[in-house]
Amino acid sequence: MQRSLLIAGAAFAALGLSGRAALADEGLWTFDNFPAAAVKAKYGVTIDKAWLDRVQHATVRLSTGCSASVVSPDGLVLTNHHCILDCAQALSTPEQDYIKSGFIAANRREERLCPGVQAEILTSILDVTDRIGAAVAGKTGPDFVKARDAAIAAIEQEGCAGKTAILRCQVVTLYQGAQYKLYAYRKYADVRLVFAPELATAFFGGDPDNFNFPRYDLECSFVRLYENGQPVKTPDHLRWSAAPPTDGEPAFIAGDPVPTQRADTADQLSFIRSIQLPQTLLRYSELRGRLTRFKEEGPEQARVATDKLFNIENRYKARYDQLLALNEPGFIEAKREADLALKAKVEADLGLKAAVGDPWSEIAQAQNVYAGLYAAYDLLEDAPATGSDLYSWARALVRAAAERQKPNGERLADFTDSRLPLVEKEVVDAKPVDLTLEQLELEFWLTKVREYLTADAPETKLMLGKDSPEELSKRLASSRLIDPAYRKQLWDGGQAAIEACDDPLIRYVFTTDPAARALRRAYEARVAGPVEQAQARLAKARFAIYGTSVAPDATTTPRLSYGKIAGWTAHGQTVPSFTYFKGLYARATGQPPFQLTQRWIDAQPKLNPTTVFDISSSTDLFPGNSGSPLINARGEVIGAVFDGNPYMLGGAFAYDARLIRAVSVSTAAITEALEKVYDDRGLVKELTAR
Amino acid sequence: MQRSLLIAGAAFAALGLSGRAALADEGLWTFDNFPAAAVKAKYGVTIDKAWLDRVQHATVRLSTGCSASVVSPDGLVLTNHHCILDCAQALSTPEQDYIKSGFIAANRREERLCPGVQAEILTSILDVTDRIGAAVAGKTGPDFVKARDAAIAAIEQEGCAGKTAILRCQVVTLYQGAQYKLYAYRKYADVRLVFAPELATAFFGGDPDNFNFPRYDLECSFVRLYENGQPVKTPDHLRWSAAPPTDGEPAFIAGDPVPTQRADTADQLSFIRSIQLPQTLLRYSELRGRLTRFKEEGPEQARVATDKLFNIENRYKARYDQLLALNEPGFIEAKREADLALKAKVEADLGLKAAVGDPWSEIAQAQNVYAGLYAAYDLLEDAPATGSDLYSWARALVRAAAERQKPNGERLADFTDSRLPLVEKEVVDAKPVDLTLEQLELEFWLTKVREYLTADAPETKLMLGKDSPEELSKRLASSRLIDPAYRKQLWDGGQAAIEACDDPLIRYVFTTDPAARALRRAYEARVAGPVEQAQARLAKARFAIYGTSVAPDATTTPRLSYGKIAGWTAHGQTVPSFTYFKGLYARATGQPPFQLTQRWIDAQPKLNPTTVFDISSSTDLFPGNSGSPLINARGEVIGAVFDGNPYMLGGAFAYDARLIRAVSVSTAAITEALEKVYDDRGLVKELTAR
Repeated sequence: MQRSLLIAGAAFAALGLSGRAALADEGLWTFDNFPAAAVKAKYGVTIDKAWLDRVQHATVRLSTGCSASVVSPDGLVLTNHHCILDCAQALSTPEQDYIKSGFIAANRREERLCPGVQAEILTSILDVTDRIGAAVAGKTGPDFVKARDAAIAAIEQEGCAGKTAILRCQVVTLYQGAQYKLYAYRKYADVRLVFAPELATAFFGGDPDNFNFPRYDLECSFVRLYENGQPVKTPDHLRWSAAPPTDGEPAFIAGDPVPTQRADTADQLSFIRSIQLPQTLLRYSELRGRLTRFKEEGPEQARVATDKLFNIENRYKARYDQLLALNEPGFIEAKREADLALKAKVEADLGLKAAVGDPWSEIAQAQNVYAGLYAAYDLLEDAPATGSDLYSWARALVRAAAERQKPNGERLADFTDSRLPLVEKEVVDAKPVDLTLEQLELEFWLTKVREYLTADAPETKLMLGKDSPEELSKRLASSRLIDPAYRKQLWDGGQAAIEACDDPLIRYVFTTDPAARALRRAYEARVAGPVEQAQARLAKARFAIYGTSVAPDATTTPRLSYGKIAGWTAHGQTVPSFTYFKGLYARATGQPPFQLTQRWIDAQPKLNPTTVFDISSSTDLFPGNSGSPLINARGEVIGAVFDGNPYMLGGAFAYDARLIRAVSVSTAAITEALEKVYDDRGLVKELTAR
Repeated sequence: MQRSLLIAGAAFAALGLSGRAALADEGLWTFDNFPAAAVKAKYGVTIDKAWLDRVQHATVRLSTGCSASVVSPDGLVLTNHHCILDCAQALSTPEQDYIKSGFIAANRREERLCPGVQAEILTSILDVTDRIGAAVAGKTGPDFVKARDAAIAAIEQEGCAGKTAILRCQVVTLYQGAQYKLYAYRKYADVRLVFAPELATAFFGGDPDNFNFPRYDLECSFVRLYENGQPVKTPDHLRWSAAPPTDGEPAFIAGDPVPTQRADTADQLSFIRSIQLPQTLLRYSELRGRLTRFKEEGPEQARVATDKLFNIENRYKARYDQLLALNEPGFIEAKREADLALKAKVEADLGLKAAVGDPWSEIAQAQNVYAGLYAAYDLLEDAPATGSDLYSWARALVRAAAERQKPNGERLADFTDSRLPLVEKEVVDAKPVDLTLEQLELEFWLTKVREYLTADAPETKLMLGKDSPEELSKRLASSRLIDPAYRKQLWDGGQAAIEACDDPLIRYVFTTDPAARALRRAYEARVAGPVEQAQARLAKARFAIYGTSVAPDATTTPRLSYGKIAGWTAHGQTVPSFTYFKGLYARATGQPPFQLTQRWIDAQPKLNPTTVFDISSSTDLFPGNSGSPLINARGEVIGAVFDGNPYMLGGAFAYDARLIRAVSVSTAAITEALEKVYDDRGLVKELTAR
């Protein structure tokens, strides 16, 4: 099937975004506002509080940007392979490449720490909307941002006071600022790898098949939560279903989708289409080219670049599919009509009009400002040096040292007390880095700074001086930050250590950080602040008209969605709900990325060819749901979500139940593969409690 | 200055595209319809027939896609450095790298043949509109395309009958098919390199400064036309001005700009913005990344990849600037208003309405079809294997053999009798290729076929079978086509030789060509045919309303434009018209691409710091004008056009005299550099007739 969303645009338009009323199966719902009545009415199944609580307490957020679920009483957690790819890369050596061979812990002593990874489980939700509202009353622009961030920092600090070793508090902004809730998570900083198949098996079909279906991927892995050196006891786990679901049965997804923009105005989408996505995609594309060539330079280059190339290709394709959606004829126009329809409703209500004003124009104006600011803000402040671990450590060290000197409420949001422990863990955990690869990433980034801002921009002159990106990146990549002990020493040494440090990368970040911070302030004062305030009023209008019958946009926090096991029909072709083991063998060509590992070739006679392998379901989802449990009405895990079909990314802006599908690997396939391909009876026993 | 067209969109909109009446200085005019009266009225200078004839006969089209001018009585031709970059690359060896060192022929015996390069000078223009009109009367779709192409082939054959050794005939479609003219060119197949500076001097500032101004580039080279082993006598050459122009004086550009799309409808521009440019840019970007990394693998890799990387970066930036223009808020909307205004005028005239119909809807419909066809058509038929010389030779050999068996009128347009000699020259001329680089390009292309069409598309299955792009490209790059004698043998052997040939690349192209041809037929039947017919009616409507007071869109054929020496003001900043030698030294950093060669460092004391180096002028232009002479009112050459400012590429869709600027290197700078940096007194003497 050609990757084209032509039909989707028409469908989105036909479905009438104008209402923003809940569409069939739409919604990434919070656990405290799940539409159980709608599910009951549509699917005839009862989702009660016990069901919701159990699923909430078994749903895990990983700091790698993934979701997961607890699937045994001993802290065993199911997630995707690509969610632990960085971990497998970090644990590998030239002699023992777990990405190629897979990782199978023969027993718990062999389970190995994933550096920088933290797991979090949501334990409580508290509404703090009024408190934030009081703190920001009458404030605008940078004052508004400052007051709000200070209030958030204070609430997070109080919420977890005395329990920060095991809890993490996070104030979550819902409905574009119409609601604020304090989420408390039980956190686990010791996450160990238990089982990972070979990348060739987990990601069979590779990039060509990514974001698509049918698929034949054992896209799973298992990790285990530890505390004090022992596996964590997890009575609230999901029961494992070794049997596959049936076509059409209800299917739920719990997890932490990254932010969607379904409530954005047409002007915001135009900005994304015209500025943000083209710039991001073009940069990812070139970096992808550099990494691809690097990978072909030799076997060791191929090994060390695997996760970085995977990450960039995955991000690239996700955003490419979003661009396709926004470029659909009629898509943005339909959003504009929806904006105008809502505006007409507001203007028809004098009280509402007085309270809401004209947020649409304010947002449009801010987009124009953002267009002029975007390249510099993105390259210097928001996403500098894409992929470089050394740079991200240096940035975190320099900023943490400076921010820790300030009162909690006045710090950059990433460095408040509630967030510092994870930042520290990510900086100091041991993780191998390849210096040639780091230099490649730094050089690429510096060439883009010069290209997008021009050689004559003050930012470029600051970042490069009389240097070329090629020479400067070589110096920066000679940083001693490669040594975790040195990073720990700098972290502990604070501002004095940073100021005294002569490491070239630390010095570079220290010198250039004021320019990056200035861009952040400009962005907050001229874009984010005005947009957030306008959006909050817009959200009030939506609230007044639609209430909470519409789910809030996703915010990388725990959500629950519902739908059913279903394929789809597009361009006159119907794609069925399931693939089977036999399809894997039929699709294999003997060449990567369609190459079977020897294990799977050997196991073929033992495997049931009609075992359900991967599953398509209409359950609403978005990236960040990777690793999420696919759950049946009985609350059993029946799969691990790992992808969507080509329409899924358009779900950033609008959901269409006729086209958007979640793609999961079935627990039935995982069970059979563990037994017959990997001979891992211990894991099967733990999962099935047989 | 940030590369942003924000102001341009507003300007284009304000200028009111709606009229399509001639804007100030707008127009890439044909030599037989130059608006001398308008020039007289505006600038007070007289451009008479003698002036026009002389300039026409001194203007050269190079088969490298560039323009040039004859500047001495002995066939000496001025063009850009980047127009002979491929030639310099082809003449270089690991021991003698002319791209690095420059090329200076000490005498005529040292002047060296540029492989595959042909020069053409327009000698006559004949209107053949009625004859084509009679041939296509009553025909539509593929029948229309076939009848028109047959008529064109016949006219071209008759026009040059008996003189094909020295003439080339070309039927040119003007005003979207409202006019057809037969152009006859004197052709020169023996073009030799005379002088080229170092790339570091010609392209000082490199990609970061490309498509911008101020510039400090000696972006020139000289070639000489030969015939029968002797320099061609060229009495109709342009006089060389060793003095620079003055600010504000009139300045003309003659040359062969590639097709513009100023008469396109809003729906065509939407297609370009949403489908064509994003796909093309993303592919160029990734290939750029692969080539960049390849180039860094070693000095010999750096040497052999220089022209390929330059070409891809140049194309990339050109299209990126076009995307910026189309993404300007209001740009396409202004075009749509212009469409509606014209439509209203047509509908107000019953006779016109009957003759014109509704071409806008027909064009819109064809764009929808094109959207579904574009990726396959572009990747397999229109631009396969970007950059690969081996592939382009194989394709030409396979197709030429098949097409030569058919009557002239039934062949693919690229293989009619009037075009075959140049195709043959491009195939059989000796040119070195680097097999690793060829493999890289072929592999990249095959991965994109799989990515854009998906692994399951019939086209992908045909192109890859069970192979991976990595393995298949290795086999294809083992082709014997690297040997020019072998290519000559296959060319001469025709269809029998191709069918008997066991070369892997010839076999591959032979096997996959039917699929590529099928895509071409589908494109012609469903997109090009309907669009061309609708455009011809649209052009009739424009003709009826505006006449020839508007210039036709450019078509890579000789054009003449006028304007004046001028800088511009945007974003509150004024950019002056000239740069000077002293600016080069001020901008040098010691690091590429801002690094001076030793020659220029040594010459600094001898050079006049206030010599005009590069020039900005408001003269209308478009890519393909690279190498064009910049001409003063006296008909003297005062510069060689080599670029435009960042707004120039928006000129694809609309011209704005307030913003769009041509960038040229001055003949004053060339003269002084030849004397004082390169010590090439012979060339100076020939140019200045001193």
